[in-house]
Amino acid sequence: MATVRLVYLKAALHRQGVTSPLFRRPNSAVRAFSSAISPPSKAVVYDQHGPPDSVCKVTELPPVPLKDNEVCVRMLAAPINPSDINRIQGVYPVRPEVPAIGGYEGVGEVYSIGSAVKGLDKGDLVIPSPPSSGTWQTYFVKEQSIWHKIDKSTPVEYAATITVNPLSALRMLEDFVDLKSGDAVVQNGATSIVGQCIIQLARVRGIHTINIIRDRVGSDEVKEKLKKLGADEVFTESQLEVKNVKSLLANIPEPALGFNCVGGNAASLVLKFLKHGGTMVTYGGMSKKPVTVSTSSFIFKDLSLRGFWLQKWLTSDKAKECRGSATRMELVPFDQFPTALDKALGKLGSQPKQVIKF
Amino acid sequence: MATVRLVYLKAALHRQGVTSPLFRRPNSAVRAFSSAISPPSKAVVYDQHGPPDSVCKVTELPPVPLKDNEVCVRMLAAPINPSDINRIQGVYPVRPEVPAIGGYEGVGEVYSIGSAVKGLDKGDLVIPSPPSSGTWQTYFVKEQSIWHKIDKSTPVEYAATITVNPLSALRMLEDFVDLKSGDAVVQNGATSIVGQCIIQLARVRGIHTINIIRDRVGSDEVKEKLKKLGADEVFTESQLEVKNVKSLLANIPEPALGFNCVGGNAASLVLKFLKHGGTMVTYGGMSKKPVTVSTSSFIFKDLSLRGFWLQKWLTSDKAKECRGSATRMELVPFDQFPTALDKALGKLGSQPKQVIKF
Repeated sequence: MATVRLVYLKAALHRQGVTSPLFRRPNSAVRAFSSAISPPSKAVVYDQHGPPDSVCKVTELPPVPLKDNEVCVRMLAAPINPSDINRIQGVYPVRPEVPAIGGYEGVGEVYSIGSAVKGLDKGDLVIPSPPSSGTWQTYFVKEQSIWHKIDKSTPVEYAATITVNPLSALRMLEDFVDLKSGDAVVQNGATSIVGQCIIQLARVRGIHTINIIRDRVGSDEVKEKLKKLGADEVFTESQLEVKNVKSLLANIPEPALGFNCVGGNAASLVLKFLKHGGTMVTYGGMSKKPVTVSTSSFIFKDLSLRGFWLQKWLTSDKAKECRGSATRMELVPFDQFPTALDKALGKLGSQPKQVIKF
Repeated sequence: MATVRLVYLKAALHRQGVTSPLFRRPNSAVRAFSSAISPPSKAVVYDQHGPPDSVCKVTELPPVPLKDNEVCVRMLAAPINPSDINRIQGVYPVRPEVPAIGGYEGVGEVYSIGSAVKGLDKGDLVIPSPPSSGTWQTYFVKEQSIWHKIDKSTPVEYAATITVNPLSALRMLEDFVDLKSGDAVVQNGATSIVGQCIIQLARVRGIHTINIIRDRVGSDEVKEKLKKLGADEVFTESQLEVKNVKSLLANIPEPALGFNCVGGNAASLVLKFLKHGGTMVTYGGMSKKPVTVSTSSFIFKDLSLRGFWLQKWLTSDKAKECRGSATRMELVPFDQFPTALDKALGKLGSQPKQVIKF
């Protein structure tokens, strides 16, 4: 029981923004507290890094008093993203110190506000922007500056997932190569949420997409689904075991830009499609295999290899809104969090994006 | 004998700029010929791609008449560069059609000029700029536009080698990352001519160099030699088998730019030295191993990987002069060409740059 209490206490401190070092005394110049106080919050807490399904505990945290500039948001929905998993595993280079509450994006409605808060009212629909650690809880207390008011008619599953994945897709389409209508891009991991966003955003801009997926049971249905989203071509990796992959492209120009979230052979396939002088952007490594590139790809094909990390972009530039995505998502009641986590961890096979509904 | 004659004939046609398809009839709109005629030319000819020491034959080519706009240059010296070897092997993506004369850069003096040639006189010291296939011969006939007059006091071994390697070094230092005095670069293959040029050019600009060489007998002497050229640090690959290579750098800042002409482990070592957001430029692959990069290098370390090819730069931009290099070279009489080729092929161990003297 002592351990459980310790976790409670630590998590409560975390909710008040006291994260590191743990148990330090409140600063003497501490800001004034409002009279408002949050309700107790049911939260997904981990007090050490490790396998998310072992270290995560759903815990009720005690109420916290609101500082003048803070807002208490009743969270409505928050997704389980791959980067959330990596933060809990401890393999992400930037992560909150433990004990911590999971989650990085989400949507909620304003429940109560500190005495100095202006421009936000009870009932407003808000998202944390930039995204912030701790969205996997029922009542999230955080300073006003991170809460961004959005249109109340936005469906919660879209609002909850608008920041990380669609924004990554948008930035990757915009920030590396100047694409025009009629151009093409190639990507692996096309069934990922970012991949699906790329297909849709590209389509809106008249940009063709060449998509690479794993060989799997049901790949025909996956192809069909991606084509409905707007994909021009979808190939399994084994279909690309040909001498010249470009011969498979009928009326699509050679792509100048490629996206890699897999690594290994799937990354090499992206490189094979790229035109002379093209750029491949790596934003993930799902196969856990490195990217291997021939010398001649650099010298004679003049390829450039770059990387993309949303977190860096968010701190180096002003986040922009990115709307219009429609991906397959499953709204899961909070009390089914363990099942949602299992699905997000891939234990139950291919599953829709898990979005927790509080 | 018939074969030998065929080679003669093909090579003679090649000298007249008739390279492909072979044995085509002269164009009816052929330009007028001057009265001038070249002397017979002793040339290194290959009529098929393959191992240079098998396919190259020193052959006397018959005299050719000069067109109005052509210049006959008595070649004085020409180096054996790695790219010359690759062209003969047939592994270079842009190469003259066979039968062809070897060599790509060199220096000579004007022997005779076509009737329309202005601004060049007999005895002028000239280099082909842009470099052009066919410098391995005693009399090289080529249109005036490629011959660039240089100062007569230039030592022939420097004039013969000024274009390919020092220019590559200069462009790679200038065209990828904006370097300032006090910055650092890292490179593998530091004993290559380009590597030595990088050391010297960087030094002139106050840029530190971190140099990686192979483990070999006599590596201490190699280190000493490179340090005399201006290298700040020289490590063998095995010296870099430590957890954090950057801990080996005392007063040198982390480099934002790296050069790779080796591939494999030596390329990974360059990547390890690079600072966040750094760029590695690949310009060779001496180990014949690819470049392997972790996903996190792209995403979290924000590394960029690029390539450099002088031939592309020469066609996309105006070639600039690059002087001031002093590398170890051996002037070899033309009649010792087979030995020079063996040395250039590495058959006789570490050898100075081979520059043929005609």
